Amino acid sequence: MDPATPFTLSCPIPISDYPTVLLAHGGGGKLSHMLIEKIMLGAFGNPALDARHDGAVFTLNGSPARVAFTTDSYVIHPLFFPGGDIGSLAVHGTVNDLSMCGARPLYLSAGFIIEEGLPMDTLWRVVQSMQQAAQHAGVQIVTGDTKVVDRGKADGLFINTAGVGVIEHDLRIAPQSVRPGDVLLVNGDLGRHGMAIMAVREGLEFESAIESDSAPLNGLVQALIDAGIEIHCLRDLTRGGLASALNEIAGVAQVSISIEEALIPVRDDVRAACEILGFDPLYVANEGRLVAFVGAQDAGRALEILQAHPLGRGAAQIGSVNAAGRPGLVTLRSRIGASRIVDMMSGEQLPRIC
Amino acid sequence: MDPATPFTLSCPIPISDYPTVLLAHGGGGKLSHMLIEKIMLGAFGNPALDARHDGAVFTLNGSPARVAFTTDSYVIHPLFFPGGDIGSLAVHGTVNDLSMCGARPLYLSAGFIIEEGLPMDTLWRVVQSMQQAAQHAGVQIVTGDTKVVDRGKADGLFINTAGVGVIEHDLRIAPQSVRPGDVLLVNGDLGRHGMAIMAVREGLEFESAIESDSAPLNGLVQALIDAGIEIHCLRDLTRGGLASALNEIAGVAQVSISIEEALIPVRDDVRAACEILGFDPLYVANEGRLVAFVGAQDAGRALEILQAHPLGRGAAQIGSVNAAGRPGLVTLRSRIGASRIVDMMSGEQLPRIC
Repeated sequence: MDPATPFTLSCPIPISDYPTVLLAHGGGGKLSHMLIEKIMLGAFGNPALDARHDGAVFTLNGSPARVAFTTDSYVIHPLFFPGGDIGSLAVHGTVNDLSMCGARPLYLSAGFIIEEGLPMDTLWRVVQSMQQAAQHAGVQIVTGDTKVVDRGKADGLFINTAGVGVIEHDLRIAPQSVRPGDVLLVNGDLGRHGMAIMAVREGLEFESAIESDSAPLNGLVQALIDAGIEIHCLRDLTRGGLASALNEIAGVAQVSISIEEALIPVRDDVRAACEILGFDPLYVANEGRLVAFVGAQDAGRALEILQAHPLGRGAAQIGSVNAAGRPGLVTLRSRIGASRIVDMMSGEQLPRIC
Repeated sequence: MDPATPFTLSCPIPISDYPTVLLAHGGGGKLSHMLIEKIMLGAFGNPALDARHDGAVFTLNGSPARVAFTTDSYVIHPLFFPGGDIGSLAVHGTVNDLSMCGARPLYLSAGFIIEEGLPMDTLWRVVQSMQQAAQHAGVQIVTGDTKVVDRGKADGLFINTAGVGVIEHDLRIAPQSVRPGDVLLVNGDLGRHGMAIMAVREGLEFESAIESDSAPLNGLVQALIDAGIEIHCLRDLTRGGLASALNEIAGVAQVSISIEEALIPVRDDVRAACEILGFDPLYVANEGRLVAFVGAQDAGRALEILQAHPLGRGAAQIGSVNAAGRPGLVTLRSRIGASRIVDMMSGEQLPRIC
């Protein structure tokens, strides 16, 4: 790059609106969406990114076989939590992003940013946990990088993982493939990851500890693919939860989505924790939960396959894509039969949840 | 992963030696080497990582074509410096790691960890710079992630990039391919990146500003490959500089390497800055410099090809791999004819140089 090249384009987010980056710009809701749309797509826009999927899909070497590629950084606080730690999360998260592209995850990279002073044994526990999680998910960590920054310039440990996988079927699993009539399935109860983290942070004690749902979803997705289910779209329900994921997909696919409150599985203790802390489970992050959009004719069979898998025992059909309705809109029918709009999350609910 | 699985292995770096991670564990020298060997390879060890190369190389989909995959995080301070910024550096560094595997870089991921309060315009300048650098290098940024951490928990901005490239020739470019008789070439003067950063940090003014050598080396490497040069190994001379790179390669290849001080190009102003600040240019980081190990019969032609390229005008033959000598040893013949051992860097010279 010619270092003398001037930066001629003015910032696409008006400085008068947002002079600085806020925590909410990373929260998975409206401001995150704006930052990605305006700044990231504004600079990097290309067909792979414009697809707004969990990863990029391309071919290599002129081979028709498709390859998926994705990345996530993990800044979760605290590093260890009920049901996992930053290491297992960094493996599950990227395995899941590849799975949501319909890919079989194969290889991960691991980039560590360590704050000077991190106990050596903490690092060792985290990398062992990553290795266990990778083995369990059937992937290999094949390349990495380690940086150390001075005390006070990071918070213990941040990890980035990127992943490469292969797509071994002809489905086009992407938001653009969603169509009216599709049925929405989730693979289990929502909100556990976010509430597990919040309970630790807030020092809350419940009768039984809420454990994160953090898990690798590649086996579950593979089971659907192997059974020939007509999967149109998959999305893991991380930052911003089910509500934000559905809003993003409805926006890209330009469809209207309806969900039924009574059908959405939420554990009683999670619901209670949400009430105490003022959260809506629809917006709480999960790390082992997905929504699948499948053709209506396959809905029953897909649900059976999910429920037969250890990570899908609590699977449920929660809604559908409407034949009519305003494109981009997500609506919820409540337990008492009232209908309300489910918007994308605004503001920042749960900073550093992943 | 079963969260109940106990971590049974004790930390392979004795807590009594290093109870915590030190800055030097990220500096590219002896302690970095130890951290990677003991902790990272201790947990993740597999053939791809064990090759100790700049990236992993594998095949996909049963195709014989090889794919390279690599990652680096960038924590450089300050974010903008003469000759570049964290954005262009994050592209060049990963493009170069792929190039050092002999791969043609194609796709990058970008993971941002942003400190709350970063000026929005700073982020915009950085992502524009990344995009310019990517276009210049002929790669696409196809997937990404953005996290925001609270004020004081990061230092402005950290960026991780991972990269995917394809290997389109039959050479095995790796430390293991180095053999006695090989000739060492560098593509230009050493030490500019490190000294550019240090001059800014220390507020030093020289007659002419020292600009970083940060540049994408894929075109240069492609020129060597296209000409059929018998390349045995390539390594970019980042953290730890030429000295650490040669020690790593000598150790993996189990060969003895000799270099000639008088043949190693260092600009006068860089040498002067090194003297003022107490650095040895052999240990200073570069971000657009490589060492190539080539078969002796191709040395002259390879040097001509490098010198004909805009990023290789200052290329030089600086040494060779000895037929005898202690495996793993790197020696330097000084200007006055004395011979001394060039060890891997110990301690931390230049924190957060990349």
